[in-house]
Amino acid sequence: MKKLNEVWAASNARFEAQLAKRYAGHGEPQEKLFEAMDYSLLAGGKRLRPFLVYQFCVACGGRTEDADPAALAIEMVHTYSLIHDDLPAMDNDDYRRGRLTNHKVYGEAMAILAGDGLLTDAFSLLASAELPPERIAACVRVLSQNAGPWGMVAGQVLDMLSEERRLTEQEVLDIQTRKTGALIRAACEMGVVCAGGSTEQRDAARRYADGVGLAFQIRDDILDVIGQAETLGKAVGVDTQKNTFVRLFGIEACQERIKTETEAACATLNCFKHAEILVDLAEYLTKRDH
Amino acid sequence: MKKLNEVWAASNARFEAQLAKRYAGHGEPQEKLFEAMDYSLLAGGKRLRPFLVYQFCVACGGRTEDADPAALAIEMVHTYSLIHDDLPAMDNDDYRRGRLTNHKVYGEAMAILAGDGLLTDAFSLLASAELPPERIAACVRVLSQNAGPWGMVAGQVLDMLSEERRLTEQEVLDIQTRKTGALIRAACEMGVVCAGGSTEQRDAARRYADGVGLAFQIRDDILDVIGQAETLGKAVGVDTQKNTFVRLFGIEACQERIKTETEAACATLNCFKHAEILVDLAEYLTKRDH
Repeated sequence: MKKLNEVWAASNARFEAQLAKRYAGHGEPQEKLFEAMDYSLLAGGKRLRPFLVYQFCVACGGRTEDADPAALAIEMVHTYSLIHDDLPAMDNDDYRRGRLTNHKVYGEAMAILAGDGLLTDAFSLLASAELPPERIAACVRVLSQNAGPWGMVAGQVLDMLSEERRLTEQEVLDIQTRKTGALIRAACEMGVVCAGGSTEQRDAARRYADGVGLAFQIRDDILDVIGQAETLGKAVGVDTQKNTFVRLFGIEACQERIKTETEAACATLNCFKHAEILVDLAEYLTKRDH
Repeated sequence: MKKLNEVWAASNARFEAQLAKRYAGHGEPQEKLFEAMDYSLLAGGKRLRPFLVYQFCVACGGRTEDADPAALAIEMVHTYSLIHDDLPAMDNDDYRRGRLTNHKVYGEAMAILAGDGLLTDAFSLLASAELPPERIAACVRVLSQNAGPWGMVAGQVLDMLSEERRLTEQEVLDIQTRKTGALIRAACEMGVVCAGGSTEQRDAARRYADGVGLAFQIRDDILDVIGQAETLGKAVGVDTQKNTFVRLFGIEACQERIKTETEAACATLNCFKHAEILVDLAEYLTKRDH
């Protein structure tokens, strides 16, 4: 996995530098808004979604710079969803990744607007990309459909409405597919679109994303039960009353499911020229401890 | 103005029918989300922004159906902004247009998500339009830039941060330009884009929007002072402690400013084939009583 770590670190270095430039130095009068947006946007993290955008673009033989706008956009949408999800009216979380949540620092009103700003600006960034317009339109379509009221927003709603009752396997899967899976799917598919990949490659990217996304979420549920508070930077065990995969199946069956989903994900990669890193990534995600 | 009223009514009939179809009958599982979105989206109103999209498209010789997606999208973005603006953490309004606000009916969490869903789906709708991809990309760019953290969201932030102090004319103008003006500008410019209009026409549409948008906001401030509660459907005089144009200049100077702005707006329309309705509309807006 040495190569994966190196590639990921190099990718993140490029990505962080670009991310930091988006709102820096824009000064008055809306300085406070940019500060609030950057507070959450530049809080670090694995940057899994941008990395998927880049790697699928490269896997199709595309140029890294063609994937930059989609990589930035997906992280902005991910960040907006975390800011709104943490709000008092939603999950009411005071901490994320060991830091105070956005609304604890900037107040609820500014946190709502910072989320709105990031979501809207993700589409500005895509629409201003130096890409053929049909690729821009396709990226906007993929991102908005996966993030919108049939995708991630629906996942949030279903999650919220289901907190009171015990769910079936299908319902838990449905929530996961939308709440976490949708943005991972958007990341993989946009990577192919940025490179001008084929329909077959777009289909394969979605299937890879579905396998990896599900394995990622199940691993998250496991880590939530067995993980260390200091490693994750959040309270452990808080989700045990929620409808998690661990609660449904138990840890052992979850680990088996991670394995089969990861194998299924990697089996879709034949139509790409350079998919080695994507295979390594899928395997790494099954074993990660944070 | 008889013709304006007829054209506007016909336009709205077409528009409302399409708007009502977007989320109707999508059923479980996220039915409640669509219900919350539709509650605010189908609450009526003048539909000024969609009408501007249609009229600028027609003024360029374009087809009405080519303007449908942008007309729907602009109203969805406008509606999301009202839902979030009414939240307890923001303006904390219980009523809008004489009906309970979204969060009073569906709760804060659902209202936040309904807003997020409408904003995101506006871009889905645009990106799925049956238009040449370069027009789609341009519409996404125009809408997101005007609605985002340099546009409407910045306007909300500046308005919020300025409530405690008295502003200069330039500051009040700056807030208005972003908070209300930006979406009106997006509506006019997208209309031209949908029709495949020229750069000159896009520039003219923006200048018309700036004049009409400012006149619209000043008239709003006047109506807020002299208007009738039952006509407006909201409490009259609530904004008098805010930084309004009436507070800055007094009613008489405001009425003069409306006149000059409207004349400036109409003077930009020479480059359009069919601009008669746009002239009538600008004049109507100076005199409207709701």
